[in-house]
Amino acid sequence: MLKHSKKIAVAGGGSWATANIKMLADNIIEKEIFWWMRNGDAAEYIRNYGHNPNYLSSVEIKIPAQNISTDLKTTIKAADFVLLNVPAAFLKEALQGVEPADLEGKYIVSAIKGIVPDENKIIAEFMHDTFRVPLQNILVISGPCHAEEVALEKLSYLTIASQNVELATEFAGMLNTRYIKTVVSDDIYGTEYGAVLKNVYAIASGICHGVGYGDNFQSVLISNAIRELERFVAVVHPIDRDIKESAYLGDLLVTAYSQFSRNRTFGNMIGKGYTVKSAQLEMNMIAEGYYAVNCLHQVNKQYQVEMPICEAVYAILYKKSSPVFEMQKLAEKLS
Amino acid sequence: MLKHSKKIAVAGGGSWATANIKMLADNIIEKEIFWWMRNGDAAEYIRNYGHNPNYLSSVEIKIPAQNISTDLKTTIKAADFVLLNVPAAFLKEALQGVEPADLEGKYIVSAIKGIVPDENKIIAEFMHDTFRVPLQNILVISGPCHAEEVALEKLSYLTIASQNVELATEFAGMLNTRYIKTVVSDDIYGTEYGAVLKNVYAIASGICHGVGYGDNFQSVLISNAIRELERFVAVVHPIDRDIKESAYLGDLLVTAYSQFSRNRTFGNMIGKGYTVKSAQLEMNMIAEGYYAVNCLHQVNKQYQVEMPICEAVYAILYKKSSPVFEMQKLAEKLS
Repeated sequence: MLKHSKKIAVAGGGSWATANIKMLADNIIEKEIFWWMRNGDAAEYIRNYGHNPNYLSSVEIKIPAQNISTDLKTTIKAADFVLLNVPAAFLKEALQGVEPADLEGKYIVSAIKGIVPDENKIIAEFMHDTFRVPLQNILVISGPCHAEEVALEKLSYLTIASQNVELATEFAGMLNTRYIKTVVSDDIYGTEYGAVLKNVYAIASGICHGVGYGDNFQSVLISNAIRELERFVAVVHPIDRDIKESAYLGDLLVTAYSQFSRNRTFGNMIGKGYTVKSAQLEMNMIAEGYYAVNCLHQVNKQYQVEMPICEAVYAILYKKSSPVFEMQKLAEKLS
Repeated sequence: MLKHSKKIAVAGGGSWATANIKMLADNIIEKEIFWWMRNGDAAEYIRNYGHNPNYLSSVEIKIPAQNISTDLKTTIKAADFVLLNVPAAFLKEALQGVEPADLEGKYIVSAIKGIVPDENKIIAEFMHDTFRVPLQNILVISGPCHAEEVALEKLSYLTIASQNVELATEFAGMLNTRYIKTVVSDDIYGTEYGAVLKNVYAIASGICHGVGYGDNFQSVLISNAIRELERFVAVVHPIDRDIKESAYLGDLLVTAYSQFSRNRTFGNMIGKGYTVKSAQLEMNMIAEGYYAVNCLHQVNKQYQVEMPICEAVYAILYKKSSPVFEMQKLAEKLS
């Protein structure tokens, strides 16, 4: 028997949060699911019609209307597991008013793929440092998994990481369904940084495509990207890991090669000559890699890992350097 | 100064051979290029019009008409480097009448991605064993490189492998152009087996797509494939190598993810329910992975490496096992 009660709160109203709601609800272990989102209209719509009006609208939301709320503190209070699923850039804002005491004894599950701006910390670090959540109570959910394919019930694999492997195994058990298989890992740093960096590499990949490079170059870029990722996480958190596992390489592939990836789309527009602002307006979605590459640039000041792909993306997005020029320079460094 | 005269014969009339001709001709080092193909009509057309009528027809063939021949022995005789570029399944046939003495003192460059049927040997092994070519005189060209993108002069990276690294470096110098960058390696076994296995994984990837799996599953498949490849070459030829390099991982990615890949297309048709025969007729091109997976199945009998992806493809193509069933079984073994 599981030791914990199964009350899970999901915080965030986007497509990945909607996919998390669906898999938690479809999983057969009995549990109560709570859902917080900032958007009151969306919450009201979901209560009334059982579908998220803005993301994965085809997914039937099978949780009771009264469990959908726009008050995060109340939602957190009801739950033992708090699954964070807002863009990293807005996490601090979302958690305003939440005190460390509100999270005491709760398990924090991060499904966020990003770094907290200004703090320059991954989610696990941030929650540990700012909300005093013990690392043993922190979990990370990672892909390779596009939310759109969860909606379609296409077979997908998730990695659940925690330094507390027993906890990770338990939580994984609450996500498994006919279309979701879970893998357990003890590597929260590698999993989080992998999920962050892949967004940057997907932007790089989109930029190359936009500038006019083909599939041959793309494959070289990605095989260099996984090596760059490996170098970085080996310095930041040197444990024994196989970077070719699905949580790292698979997650990179699904993002860099997929048509669903907003980061790739954003990069493609940049490569074609859009400004950052016009690409963002056009897309009406946040490419998390845009924020992430700036944070990584700051974080890497202390580690000084050789990261030519990240640096090229950083120079293009934040220094207004020409995509054509940066990619030519980058091509000389790849092998 | 280069020690060898620069006379290079390319044997084969397909798209990759045509791409090789183009890069050798565009490279600035002075050299004489000879071209053999079996198809007399094609040879005549190229002599007259300077374009290959059947493959990469847009490419201008810049070699003298008299250097294009349908007599392999004469072509070989003129050259110091013999670049083999026929389907592995037809190599023995193409070399009929060629004696070990004809190849004495010549450098053999394999651009073939396949295993010699019945012999179950990679090209380097076969040429060494059957034609007594010293391993020191053997080179392997590998991607990631679709011929179609060479025609378009899209930046591409090639790996030139030889146990004789000096020779590899010299030959690489004859391929570099504005759009071709070369990397030198000493790993002919890993490079050849990588190039062979990636075709099988591309078929697997196509089958999954045909059966209905999505991008999430595809990324898991490929991240498992690179680990399967690593396991296999580590047993066959245990040297220190990084399987994430472009010659291995990049080559796998460009094949498994690209629309140009005939292996992927073939797999897709199989996944959608075509028989092997009807898929082959429909495509009018040879998916080399079809032959390769049979050879690998034989080769692996002695090594007994755990290769669930290859085994699934083998069972589907040679044992008429259902793609849906095999992929479901395979999915249980992936992580």
